[in-house]
Amino acid sequence: MPRSRKDRIIPVAPVDRLMRRTLTTKVDRVSDKGAEKLALILEEVGEQLSKMAVELTEYKGRKTITDKDVELAYKQWRRAF
Amino acid sequence: MPRSRKDRIIPVAPVDRLMRRTLTTKVDRVSDKGAEKLALILEEVGEQLSKMAVELTEYKGRKTITDKDVELAYKQWRRAF
Repeated sequence: MPRSRKDRIIPVAPVDRLMRRTLTTKVDRVSDKGAEKLALILEEVGEQLSKMAVELTEYKGRKTITDKDVELAYKQWRRAF
Repeated sequence: MPRSRKDRIIPVAPVDRLMRRTLTTKVDRVSDKGAEKLALILEEVGEQLSKMAVELTEYKGRKTITDKDVELAYKQWRRAF
């Protein structure tokens, strides 16, 4: 089943604002679709990182995900490609 | 200068919700710091991807970032590690 709009969690408005900070004199606009695509990608990345963090938390014998788990997940994720 | 809380763009609440979807019976909680850390990481990733998308947009001779630019940026970013 394709992902419906309802499943979307990360809001597009802040992602759009984040993109505007990277604009230049030559590239000075963000399309709606561009911001929506980045929001979806960040959600995908976030889900992957969170799953890795859960594994690390369990490995440590804890029940609560901490910033340390998320940090190590990100470090390992970057190395995975 | 260290990044202040004001510079934060991606809100923590939706990131926290996204993380909760990945919880299990063994790992069943997300700490505030864990969600804040992931929000910061996603913001960092988003900024990097947006900068790459801007370069691709300029390379194409366009002034507006589209979903295609963001998609190719993500594909290339994943390959960069």
